[in-house]
Amino acid sequence: MGNNQVVAGIDIGGTNTVFGFVDREGNILAEDRIKTTHYDDIELYVAALYEKIMKTFEKVPEGYELIGFGIGAPMGNINKGTIEYPAGLPWKGIFPLADLFRRYTSLPVLVTNDANAAAVGEMIYGGAKEMKNFVVITLGTGLGSGFVIDGKLVYGHDGFAGELGHTAIRPGPSNRECGCGRKGCLETYVSATGLKRTLLKIMADSIEPSELRKYSFDELDAELIHQAAKRGDTLAKRAFEHTGQMLGFKLADVVAHTNPEAIFLFGGLALAKELIFEPAKAFMEENLLHIYKGKVKLLPSQLSTQNAAVLGASSLIWTLKET
Amino acid sequence: MGNNQVVAGIDIGGTNTVFGFVDREGNILAEDRIKTTHYDDIELYVAALYEKIMKTFEKVPEGYELIGFGIGAPMGNINKGTIEYPAGLPWKGIFPLADLFRRYTSLPVLVTNDANAAAVGEMIYGGAKEMKNFVVITLGTGLGSGFVIDGKLVYGHDGFAGELGHTAIRPGPSNRECGCGRKGCLETYVSATGLKRTLLKIMADSIEPSELRKYSFDELDAELIHQAAKRGDTLAKRAFEHTGQMLGFKLADVVAHTNPEAIFLFGGLALAKELIFEPAKAFMEENLLHIYKGKVKLLPSQLSTQNAAVLGASSLIWTLKET
Repeated sequence: MGNNQVVAGIDIGGTNTVFGFVDREGNILAEDRIKTTHYDDIELYVAALYEKIMKTFEKVPEGYELIGFGIGAPMGNINKGTIEYPAGLPWKGIFPLADLFRRYTSLPVLVTNDANAAAVGEMIYGGAKEMKNFVVITLGTGLGSGFVIDGKLVYGHDGFAGELGHTAIRPGPSNRECGCGRKGCLETYVSATGLKRTLLKIMADSIEPSELRKYSFDELDAELIHQAAKRGDTLAKRAFEHTGQMLGFKLADVVAHTNPEAIFLFGGLALAKELIFEPAKAFMEENLLHIYKGKVKLLPSQLSTQNAAVLGASSLIWTLKET
Repeated sequence: MGNNQVVAGIDIGGTNTVFGFVDREGNILAEDRIKTTHYDDIELYVAALYEKIMKTFEKVPEGYELIGFGIGAPMGNINKGTIEYPAGLPWKGIFPLADLFRRYTSLPVLVTNDANAAAVGEMIYGGAKEMKNFVVITLGTGLGSGFVIDGKLVYGHDGFAGELGHTAIRPGPSNRECGCGRKGCLETYVSATGLKRTLLKIMADSIEPSELRKYSFDELDAELIHQAAKRGDTLAKRAFEHTGQMLGFKLADVVAHTNPEAIFLFGGLALAKELIFEPAKAFMEENLLHIYKGKVKLLPSQLSTQNAAVLGASSLIWTLKET
């Protein structure tokens, strides 16, 4: 099945919109991109994107049939095919993205957020092929999550299940402001940005030397902190440890909610391997009820990082064919 | 469908095992009980229970067919039909409860925990008849939870989804010891026992008078605190407020995980109505990401409190018929 079929996977980011034609095995047969920021008007954006996609389809080898469009976008709502007040995109409000696409095509168009797309991608092409119950946590600028239960992505009543990044780390006041307008959200601790913020706090409290003291907040990024930690920088290692602990603390909650077989970590921070996995696993286990202890795997995503978002977006369409 | 059929609903509690024959509408046609504590050996217990159940079936009006046994028990595992290290029951270890029943019957036997049973009961007989995505929180001596997603109870990979009572209220050390051996679990704050513990802390810190100062910890119960709060006792009201806030804080997490249409509160504490619902709702809303605000209903369970556990246990069998 799907031998001569491809899906257009589209990842809408704040700067670029990247797309590719993906076969059932996860091979990308052609790809290209447009600048998201070039289009103040979403209708012009969709027109330009669709045109570029169809032009790029000509590069796909002869004989492949295009069977649908899977779109990953911030605040993408699968139930309605909309994007709703997407942070970081040029358009403010609620937009009927799938309907705008349907002006040009009668093929299936599915929209969801990046983390849900990553979860389905893991199931279709990645490390969760044999799993029915698992969770994917995406660690980028923010923290996203996608839940699969009984082999199906959980959308929830309003299409917004899996916003783990915006659960609070503790009741009551917290110092860390979140981009969502509240304080103390998990992603203010556990994300590339959260790691930087934690490093700054540790640097402020400690008098120990660190190679990272010469960088400004704006200059710092997760990769710099990762490299410093690998060279043994104490403060960088401590920042990873705290980040992993906060993640592990909330992963124990995830387990108590849905009792998954595995939790996959996806995205930049996950590349720091044991620096993030070790404290996360230890704190998760410490916070688990005895019936769960030692049973839930914490694994790196098996999607290739380079094209993961496009793969994830494309995977939505295969689930239509297979249920 | 199910017009002349009944299910045996069995609720295994620490003191009594209560059972009843329930029709598809939730009417209990006959009921009785045995003492759980009378049986040190679970095999003798099941033999006695089965005998009493079949004897009681004679009281069900002529013409009804018995179609299965639904059992609610602490740590009941639906996947395996076992009870595993059930706190508060006379037997220690893992017991194949469903298999022990199957020595006597070839009808379906399903075992799950009380909270999952309550969730299915709400869907089959109660306020969630029209809902596909909802959560039931049971507030008794402890706190249990059952999740329904896409019309199906969530069991998870090991059959233990929905142990919200054992998520921690904050990272790091907490003073409140939990029966599970850890500290700071939600149910040490949000449960009949949690309410008492909170009242004692408030009483210790405050110098205000309270009619409850004359009771010992052992004498206090949720009903006494409820009645005092209704009469305007400041400390009792404050204890309810704190309990509701801690519940609301974690309910916001529930929403961010699975985005339900409604959350039902079930059990003794829920009877305190606005004393618990108001602070819970306010704190839940305060901790919700904007996309969820004002969308999730917080509702009292519509199962009759008196027979709720038996109804819940029985409801499992109807789901077998209807999927």
